Amino acid sequence: MSTLRRNLRFVLYELLEVTTLSARERFVDHSRQTFDAALDVAFEIAEKFFATHNRKADIFEPHVENGKVVLIDEVSIALEKFRDAGFFAAHSDFENGGMQLPNMIALACQSVFLMANPATAAYPFLTIAAGNLLSSFGSEAQKEEFLGQMLKGKWFGTMALSEPQAGSSLADILTRAEPQSDGSYRIVGSKMWISAGEHELSENIVHFVLARVIGAPAGIKGISLFIVPRYRSQNGKLENNDVHLAGLLHKMGYRGTTSTVLNFGERGDCHGFLVGVANQGLTYMFQMMNEARIGVGMGAVMLALAGYEYSLEYARTRLQGRDHKDPLEPQTAIINHADVRRMLLEQKAIAEGGLALGLYASSLVEDEKTHPIDTNRKEAALLLELLTPIVKAWSSQYGLKANENAIQILGGYGYTREYPVEQIYRDNRLNPIHEGTTGIQGLDLLGRKIVQFEGASLNLLTREMKFTIDAARLETDIKDDAEQLENTLNQALQTTEKLLQARSELGTKIFLANSNTYLEMLGHTVIAWMWLKQAIVAARALSRELSEDETAFYQGKIHTCQFFYRFELPKVAVWSKLLISLDTTVLEMQSEWF
Amino acid sequence: MSTLRRNLRFVLYELLEVTTLSARERFVDHSRQTFDAALDVAFEIAEKFFATHNRKADIFEPHVENGKVVLIDEVSIALEKFRDAGFFAAHSDFENGGMQLPNMIALACQSVFLMANPATAAYPFLTIAAGNLLSSFGSEAQKEEFLGQMLKGKWFGTMALSEPQAGSSLADILTRAEPQSDGSYRIVGSKMWISAGEHELSENIVHFVLARVIGAPAGIKGISLFIVPRYRSQNGKLENNDVHLAGLLHKMGYRGTTSTVLNFGERGDCHGFLVGVANQGLTYMFQMMNEARIGVGMGAVMLALAGYEYSLEYARTRLQGRDHKDPLEPQTAIINHADVRRMLLEQKAIAEGGLALGLYASSLVEDEKTHPIDTNRKEAALLLELLTPIVKAWSSQYGLKANENAIQILGGYGYTREYPVEQIYRDNRLNPIHEGTTGIQGLDLLGRKIVQFEGASLNLLTREMKFTIDAARLETDIKDDAEQLENTLNQALQTTEKLLQARSELGTKIFLANSNTYLEMLGHTVIAWMWLKQAIVAARALSRELSEDETAFYQGKIHTCQFFYRFELPKVAVWSKLLISLDTTVLEMQSEWF
Repeated sequence: MSTLRRNLRFVLYELLEVTTLSARERFVDHSRQTFDAALDVAFEIAEKFFATHNRKADIFEPHVENGKVVLIDEVSIALEKFRDAGFFAAHSDFENGGMQLPNMIALACQSVFLMANPATAAYPFLTIAAGNLLSSFGSEAQKEEFLGQMLKGKWFGTMALSEPQAGSSLADILTRAEPQSDGSYRIVGSKMWISAGEHELSENIVHFVLARVIGAPAGIKGISLFIVPRYRSQNGKLENNDVHLAGLLHKMGYRGTTSTVLNFGERGDCHGFLVGVANQGLTYMFQMMNEARIGVGMGAVMLALAGYEYSLEYARTRLQGRDHKDPLEPQTAIINHADVRRMLLEQKAIAEGGLALGLYASSLVEDEKTHPIDTNRKEAALLLELLTPIVKAWSSQYGLKANENAIQILGGYGYTREYPVEQIYRDNRLNPIHEGTTGIQGLDLLGRKIVQFEGASLNLLTREMKFTIDAARLETDIKDDAEQLENTLNQALQTTEKLLQARSELGTKIFLANSNTYLEMLGHTVIAWMWLKQAIVAARALSRELSEDETAFYQGKIHTCQFFYRFELPKVAVWSKLLISLDTTVLEMQSEWF
Repeated sequence: MSTLRRNLRFVLYELLEVTTLSARERFVDHSRQTFDAALDVAFEIAEKFFATHNRKADIFEPHVENGKVVLIDEVSIALEKFRDAGFFAAHSDFENGGMQLPNMIALACQSVFLMANPATAAYPFLTIAAGNLLSSFGSEAQKEEFLGQMLKGKWFGTMALSEPQAGSSLADILTRAEPQSDGSYRIVGSKMWISAGEHELSENIVHFVLARVIGAPAGIKGISLFIVPRYRSQNGKLENNDVHLAGLLHKMGYRGTTSTVLNFGERGDCHGFLVGVANQGLTYMFQMMNEARIGVGMGAVMLALAGYEYSLEYARTRLQGRDHKDPLEPQTAIINHADVRRMLLEQKAIAEGGLALGLYASSLVEDEKTHPIDTNRKEAALLLELLTPIVKAWSSQYGLKANENAIQILGGYGYTREYPVEQIYRDNRLNPIHEGTTGIQGLDLLGRKIVQFEGASLNLLTREMKFTIDAARLETDIKDDAEQLENTLNQALQTTEKLLQARSELGTKIFLANSNTYLEMLGHTVIAWMWLKQAIVAARALSRELSEDETAFYQGKIHTCQFFYRFELPKVAVWSKLLISLDTTVLEMQSEWF
């Protein structure tokens, strides 16, 4: 995991300058030292207790014995270490027993676990996300009863949104909530795809369930959010709350995380507790979902990085073929073959570009919450809204592409289960699906984020990108790239303008017909921006006296930036042209023509 | 498998006009009727006996019990039906008990089995490929001893090329062959990744082994081909030939086909029989490998089609979301969402474009062998050489992309093992690796096929494509596409010229630096050609009186052609520009910069 270690240092301290946060009151007690300490502990636990059972948890996937879900022992041991180190409350206030770390550092620590073992990491990360939801919208009594236990890692949490008939279409959930005289609700319904929905890893599981209060309006305006614990407190004891495991789902990858079908209220005795006010459930959930989407993007990036690291090491040591054609010459390491190097460069461009973007997004999360200036908080929120679907979808889509390359570099070995890269691919395949598919992200980006507030978020993005472009112009090695990014940005802006015009003249259907292509276009533009940002830092660093290793690191950054600009960024022109033509091929295709 | 059925009819009879082959002496007894009969039997057996255990063979993968490889029973039952129907000798002469079918029909029949269950189909198809090798280069005595049994499907065959230290680099194989006074050889060595290398499905397994005769020159010039049976005939009985299973490999997919490590001559008693003359092994093997590469491409296409068919059916029946935003409106089938339609169109473009190309290539195999005019035979051979790496690599790479879409359309369901699409992806992931990785195909295309005979093969391709372009110009609906293809072709030709110039001025290294991008560029151009060919047939058909279904089928062809031209073909410009710039980013990247 040495690539991650060096890249976190680079992105956190050199690119995003996270230590400047110490100037904010919330972080006065923090410094590079405390950040490094947290990261060191994360690496230590991740390497010793998470990475070591990543394969085993895939092979011996969760199963049910005597009505209980059985996981391999290593999972609970790893989570105990995670809990003891305080990572359940990494970002929480000191007064709640937390470490009060900035969002960037907390996410950086999470990324370490996501790289080592995403399936085991899912249990605490879902709990943390659920905790954030409660922390934002729960009542004081609810926080007292549930949040404390979650921050200590004693009770775990889940997000129970989907149902068999309602995946992408949350408007169609059927789970019902009937109000009781004591202020609680009786919950009846079935939820599907609930990750970490059942296990024996914690004393309790706190489900955050979307349901309709009897008589609520149809559609998304009638959805409320409920706390539904597996066990509820009754006379000081924990008693069964009528939540039942209907079945485990068997996934392609990510097998160590249970994926469940849960039935609530089979006996009519499932108690739920309304969070906030009724019918606002989806609004609450969306705050959590935005954070979860950044988490998914980071997870995808971490698997891209895992495959990159492994295939890089393999390419450096596997001998095959020769530089010249003399059969008596010794064989050469495959990293010396041009196409292998291309496949490594592509992985590096994806993984390190995605990592920079994910952490940049988390700096916006931080700014939104704790920036001292009101305008900055608002701008951070706006920019974050725009970038979230890109963090989620671009990283998921291209993370898989990176993993394809890792398998390909290992050849036959990469295709066997004796080597880790095929599992990495299988695990990563989940990421374009959960927390909103790529198609949903495309609609969210173009149909919502671009349109809202009269394009304010895209204006902000433009302003920020122009700062970077101007700074890059001052560095000889990358000034051509600055030029290229400016042209690309202008292309993207003209495309957006054309689409918005079409929206008002021709309607939403044509406007959104190629929203996936728009996501591709803006995604590549944003990643190119992240690479130019990295290249600026690298170019400046190279003007200093550096060790050989450090020189190589920064050279690699500049060269990978250029790889992305030469091999990937020109595709924006193709996507832009298609979008500007307001192509309707997809709309015109008839179902019966397939 | 109805999409395959209709598409085979379209490609074989309407596009490639396979019935015209009846004019050739070898096929005078054949007609549409006999072809259809063979296809009908293939569909019947594939649907009843192959498709039905595709999943089961993945779950219960081959394992060793008491020294024997155990497969699920369904495999041998399916292969018995295959054998009884005569498919082991579909292409062989009547006088050898074969059906003497044209290559196109034989491959079309194979494709049916490849779609239903590629892992079980691998056993006979490897046998057929090995039989072709023997038929071309074996002595009469060898044919008598081995080929007859293989054509009857009683003995199976394998290709034993790779070794643990020699995958892509066959120059480095170490297996030795020591000549004996009786004319045979003693074989000693270890082979890896040998598909179907061990099982109890047949009375014998005939391995075609690459090895070095003691004292042979180093590198590929010292490689010979040997027949090494698992059991050898001794005094009229079959006796153990000292071939040992060292282990089974556990693959990501394609699990039903055993993948083995085999040790030859552990006891010094492994008899091998030289095929042809010594040191010509690789030349012989390459003939087989070219056919095998077309087979791999077709396999990838069939899995693309399988995923397409399944996700299409799903998209037509799965309700999710609405056309408008009224929550009281009933939900709509997801095929009505633009992005789902895009994902289906992309699959259709890949699967049906690849199918046309694969069968077109097999028409060249046929022409090379049986065209009555000498020039045509030679031209077919040349064009086939050029297209083979594209059939293999393009279909494998984009076949996977198609499968990604299939999983994505099913969402969470697609990610579970309860639905077939995740297995389809896992099975297909082998195809870019075996029989020469995509990287190897890129080098073969640009470094060998484009260069040899002073570019004669590319000239031929150009001539053929121009015929198509001219014909398409006459059809109103597609004349713009004809224009676009002509421009793209010119771009590809100019790019090639520039590269060849660089080759003579700057050397091979720069010439080949971006061979993968060249493969992408020419691959997309060729597939666009295949789509224009299909669109011409469709446009002509639409001028006739047709049923509703038939009209929809041909409309679909034209519309998918246009989808490919609008969404995919413009990428050629990006690749061409990179190639023309003689970009050296990949060459300049240093190992320590990663």
